[in-house]
Amino acid sequence: MSHDTSYTKQKFKLIGSRVNRPDGIDKVTGRARYGADASAPGQLVGKVLRSPHAHALIKKIDTTKAEKLPGVKAVITSADMPDLTGGNRSMLDILENCMARGRALYDGHAVAAVAAVDEQTARQALKLIKVTYKRLPHVTDVDKAMLPGAPVIHDWVFTSGVDPKPEKASNVVQRNQFGHGDVEAGFAEADVIVEKTFKTEQTHQGYIEPHACLATVGPDGHGDLWVTTQGHFHFRQVCAALIGMDVAKLKVTSSEIGGGFGGKTHVWMEPVALVLAREANRPVKLVMSREEVFKATGPTSSTSVDVKIGAKKNGTITAAAAELRYQGGAFPGIWGMLGAMTSFACYDLKNVQSVGYDVICNRPKVAAYRAPSAPMAAFGIESTMDLVAEEIGMDPVKFRIKNAAKEGTQASYGPVYGPIGIGPTLKAAQNHPHMKAKLRKNQGRGMACGFWFNFGGQTCTDLNIGVDGTVSLAVGTVDVGGSRASLGLIAAEELGIEYEQVKVHIADTASLGHNDTTEGSRGTFSSGMATIFAARDAKDELCQRAAKMWDIPVSAVAWKEGKAVAKGKRHNNLAPLTLKEIAAKSPNTGGPIAGHNEVVADGAGVSFASHICDVEVDPETGATKVIRYTVVQDAGKAIHPDYVEGQFQGGAAQGIGWALNEEYIYGDDGLLQNAGFLDYRIPVCSDLPFIDTEILEIPNPNHPYGIRGVGETSIVPPLAAIGNAVSNAVGVRMTHVPMSPPRILKALDEAGV
Amino acid sequence: MSHDTSYTKQKFKLIGSRVNRPDGIDKVTGRARYGADASAPGQLVGKVLRSPHAHALIKKIDTTKAEKLPGVKAVITSADMPDLTGGNRSMLDILENCMARGRALYDGHAVAAVAAVDEQTARQALKLIKVTYKRLPHVTDVDKAMLPGAPVIHDWVFTSGVDPKPEKASNVVQRNQFGHGDVEAGFAEADVIVEKTFKTEQTHQGYIEPHACLATVGPDGHGDLWVTTQGHFHFRQVCAALIGMDVAKLKVTSSEIGGGFGGKTHVWMEPVALVLAREANRPVKLVMSREEVFKATGPTSSTSVDVKIGAKKNGTITAAAAELRYQGGAFPGIWGMLGAMTSFACYDLKNVQSVGYDVICNRPKVAAYRAPSAPMAAFGIESTMDLVAEEIGMDPVKFRIKNAAKEGTQASYGPVYGPIGIGPTLKAAQNHPHMKAKLRKNQGRGMACGFWFNFGGQTCTDLNIGVDGTVSLAVGTVDVGGSRASLGLIAAEELGIEYEQVKVHIADTASLGHNDTTEGSRGTFSSGMATIFAARDAKDELCQRAAKMWDIPVSAVAWKEGKAVAKGKRHNNLAPLTLKEIAAKSPNTGGPIAGHNEVVADGAGVSFASHICDVEVDPETGATKVIRYTVVQDAGKAIHPDYVEGQFQGGAAQGIGWALNEEYIYGDDGLLQNAGFLDYRIPVCSDLPFIDTEILEIPNPNHPYGIRGVGETSIVPPLAAIGNAVSNAVGVRMTHVPMSPPRILKALDEAGV
Repeated sequence: MSHDTSYTKQKFKLIGSRVNRPDGIDKVTGRARYGADASAPGQLVGKVLRSPHAHALIKKIDTTKAEKLPGVKAVITSADMPDLTGGNRSMLDILENCMARGRALYDGHAVAAVAAVDEQTARQALKLIKVTYKRLPHVTDVDKAMLPGAPVIHDWVFTSGVDPKPEKASNVVQRNQFGHGDVEAGFAEADVIVEKTFKTEQTHQGYIEPHACLATVGPDGHGDLWVTTQGHFHFRQVCAALIGMDVAKLKVTSSEIGGGFGGKTHVWMEPVALVLAREANRPVKLVMSREEVFKATGPTSSTSVDVKIGAKKNGTITAAAAELRYQGGAFPGIWGMLGAMTSFACYDLKNVQSVGYDVICNRPKVAAYRAPSAPMAAFGIESTMDLVAEEIGMDPVKFRIKNAAKEGTQASYGPVYGPIGIGPTLKAAQNHPHMKAKLRKNQGRGMACGFWFNFGGQTCTDLNIGVDGTVSLAVGTVDVGGSRASLGLIAAEELGIEYEQVKVHIADTASLGHNDTTEGSRGTFSSGMATIFAARDAKDELCQRAAKMWDIPVSAVAWKEGKAVAKGKRHNNLAPLTLKEIAAKSPNTGGPIAGHNEVVADGAGVSFASHICDVEVDPETGATKVIRYTVVQDAGKAIHPDYVEGQFQGGAAQGIGWALNEEYIYGDDGLLQNAGFLDYRIPVCSDLPFIDTEILEIPNPNHPYGIRGVGETSIVPPLAAIGNAVSNAVGVRMTHVPMSPPRILKALDEAGV
Repeated sequence: MSHDTSYTKQKFKLIGSRVNRPDGIDKVTGRARYGADASAPGQLVGKVLRSPHAHALIKKIDTTKAEKLPGVKAVITSADMPDLTGGNRSMLDILENCMARGRALYDGHAVAAVAAVDEQTARQALKLIKVTYKRLPHVTDVDKAMLPGAPVIHDWVFTSGVDPKPEKASNVVQRNQFGHGDVEAGFAEADVIVEKTFKTEQTHQGYIEPHACLATVGPDGHGDLWVTTQGHFHFRQVCAALIGMDVAKLKVTSSEIGGGFGGKTHVWMEPVALVLAREANRPVKLVMSREEVFKATGPTSSTSVDVKIGAKKNGTITAAAAELRYQGGAFPGIWGMLGAMTSFACYDLKNVQSVGYDVICNRPKVAAYRAPSAPMAAFGIESTMDLVAEEIGMDPVKFRIKNAAKEGTQASYGPVYGPIGIGPTLKAAQNHPHMKAKLRKNQGRGMACGFWFNFGGQTCTDLNIGVDGTVSLAVGTVDVGGSRASLGLIAAEELGIEYEQVKVHIADTASLGHNDTTEGSRGTFSSGMATIFAARDAKDELCQRAAKMWDIPVSAVAWKEGKAVAKGKRHNNLAPLTLKEIAAKSPNTGGPIAGHNEVVADGAGVSFASHICDVEVDPETGATKVIRYTVVQDAGKAIHPDYVEGQFQGGAAQGIGWALNEEYIYGDDGLLQNAGFLDYRIPVCSDLPFIDTEILEIPNPNHPYGIRGVGETSIVPPLAAIGNAVSNAVGVRMTHVPMSPPRILKALDEAGV
């Protein structure tokens, strides 16, 4: 069961080629089945009643009228979702977020749900549910929520990680500190110190497909869940625990996914759908509206970040510090911690300290959004890096190169780096033609760096060889960004067959061992590792079969380039056997040929990127147009370069939207004012330039093919790169994201420009 | 990969207990999803146009009007299903049976198909297809089809197995002979010889659920098929080959199955659904009507059988011979061969010979029906056994016991038996209270024996242990008779956990290696074997993990009664670890815990039964009522006795229907006159007595748990047992099944009773 995971330099035949994407035709012809595309006989329509208040006591819920409405088959509240968590507070948080327990904690928080024979009846039933609220004071701003007089949302939250332990509950969940050296001493050595505060607003991942599922649960306690998710095994585990099912008795099938970006890593309404189905003893389909997606699923944190960097005139950073305050919505999170960990990861610093805070507000529970927490930290740090460079009169790229982390650097969050890509991406950016292109009036150029950890984790893969020599690869990591193509390439490469011979399926939870969620850019890294080992397992079996066919010892058989080869002069007469030939005989040589692997994929490789960006700002309107954008990123090994470039471009595009326009706008009443794509503006094609990409390949030493993971790092630099570009264009330092037209005009006004 | 398959006597904790059936609630609440219960967005309704002639040349098919009908998305004929079989005649037969190629070969043979937006449009489209036929001579009776002047249905069928090779094509596909010794010499030794001819009519399996599927195929050549089937892996292989897909690119999911009994082992319309879906580029749902099920799926053979048995006065059989003619429908089959093999399998005979013929007629292609071919052979042989016993004045049970096969007997079809159950079932029948019960006027008692081979074959199982210690067992053999319960019991027994901790799923073809079809009573035998080995594989891994948790060598760990136990005095301080405890830690000890097995399950154990039956015949109407029925059968090991008894009862019930009422009635025009349950009468509850059962357990030496397989043998004796009982009741030997009222009255008339 133990396999050598270390990187082996090799000449790939298929890896790195741009084969057709396996889901392309399904997606353009409408054959792909998304979360809302499943149906079952007798299914009901589920609907959720949501709080119209930012914070309110639920004094009473009267469901009698709704229950009596003909066609209504189930009406549930938190009373129907008892606490089975056995004192596990974080599980109870998930349950409470799915269905309010006594209090509504944010605008849109679920308070009841119905299942009815059709949409109209379900809507009518929602109207017949009478909820008696008592409004409570609310807070939605991260800084205000930390003030001593702020309304305390949970009386059981006592800040952890502080000394002495607090005596009073507050909205601050935890304080996490990272770093090393002596920052005070470092700042004392500095010739120049820049200190600045930055803010970013809350954004949503903006996936096209709303959350949707089809749930059934029988009176025997067995259930099925079809759902759009990034992690159906995780959903199985959480749903089973929350509603009291055995893990094995809940079968979860992941639909095709219409975007997730972290937002589909958590359950939001699936336990509700399962309980409705159990109550009604009928399948229940629950599909969120766009408004529900905005109000009641997990956007990213809004943040407030202080950065202080000191440097010598020669460009050496002597000390760097940051305090990062992350708004996590109505429940505890780890967002401030992640922000603090990523802050200074790009640099080789003697004295560094970052402190992260997780802060509770009356907003929806925050979820991961692509390299969660890193972009906001990078906005603060990379903006400040430019300011320091300016102060000491050094080119900002050179300044970064001088301080870049390298192999052997102790990262600010702890570990010592192996071979890494920050230096190479910075040098590639420095040498990129983009860097020398001329700028015109009202235009500015900025650049910034970004870092993401990348994850590994539990992974299982089954590889089954058909009698015609085609291969079914069953994997358990949902394909959010091309992993079916990359894993197909990996299986084909390892077996020495054609890519077209491999079909990759995302197996349901009943057919494969547990797989961690597709997040942390772990899909191709970890399922790739499990696929390599499963394929090697299958090759061992193929050699066994060849030995049987030849009637020679298996020790005399080797697998070479997709063929079993008989070794030694004695066997010169034996022509190599292809996988196809061995497969065709398999019914008579021992039955189906398979390979399996269960692994905890350790050794995920850190990833770095450097982005360059040109903008043009209209000083009259404050509108910014990105006119050129270049991503340079280390991919470890780019299995399928098209997808890698697509990830680079997608991250940059989302970052551009975040930097310039996207934000949750809450009124003083604590209600969300723009819960729809008309008022929450994500970039469309015409808003974006073609995003240029440059892939660097610095192999991850802990993966047989050198894979790192590529999906997340590309969203880290954009806020800062655009912030630097806009600042350079308008001559005023921008410190608040999104840099929307009103905010740019305000900054110009304040600076008297 | 090699495992010891031999039987080990052991004390079972769970095996043999009557736990709740896992599919029970799903089936009674309607949650179970059958073939027609799947839907996909944009799906079309498929319909098939069928021949109104028994045999006709298709001169022209004009589909232009149908194609122009608004809402019609695809119209296909055999021209759209080109021959890709590369000269494989039996594959071409399957294709041709799915869609007529130039000739319609039976009433109901598919000639064209449409896919349209709704049922009404599809029906209308069928009416707009103009087929120009030229009728050809036809033959539907097996004996007539063998006559020299019979219309020869295929000019490429030359009888195999005869010497000299025939020069002319005929309807006789093959002649197969089995046996040993010298029958002529044997008959010469006999004191008594009985020679008789028997006929049986064609019957249908009569499953409640008609054939149904939902097919999609994209322009990329990837497809999905949801289908009611006994073998989704086989369906995948056949469909892929017929329509030119890679095996791995067709994902087949088996629905819950509403009965199959052999009739759902073949594709009938699934390739048509796939081609319609490919043409329309939309999902196509194809559901047969009951009339289509009768006319165009596979019933069993009608037969004509000559039997000759000679015996000494002391009861020793000196010679036995049979010639068996099996009507196989419009395409070649192996039904006569199977009939000839099973004929004399119950007896220890010195001189025995059986000859089987497969005969083509203008009827639907015959399919397996529960112990296919054996009941008709048994009807002839077991009726004749009674006649011989009568002639020599011996009790028919004693006569059978005297000649029964035993361990070491060379079977008439070749092999030498190991420990077998024919003697024990006969003795149990002899001693059964039923045998001594009094009979009244117009009542008669009969008994008969039956045999079935049982099959093994290719099987794969994946066993995955969840973090809460519940187990997902993914198997690939469709559950037609309780295998989910029996395999759950086996997994739980082997792991030493509770039955309720195991959930058995039938995995789709994308998630598991190839499994042969559930037929030949192989489900629990072969998947049971693969489950045992997969569980043992998982136990090895559990011991590894326990060793890791304890930090001791794995050699010091043993698995005992569901727990890892540390061996040796040194480890006395280590409390045993349960599966649940080890599973809970699995994320930190190496990831998900699984067991896998791919096996060719050899060593299926032969199965024998002895049935006793009492009937009462109304001499006025000829109506027969079965008033008491007892099944004694060797189960090898009865994993779940409820299901075993259910199988015994189900087989007997179907046999009773076959014996007394069911038959395909063809007119002189070659058209089927009773294609519906009103005119084709299967027994309902009120037609049947409670069927008593007695399970014997003679372990199969080639299976770790001694399993043989129980589903089929129970349909073998009923025709003969009832034939003997009716003959005893009315005093006239019945030689034609079904013994329907008109046929009994005719026999009485002819005998002058």
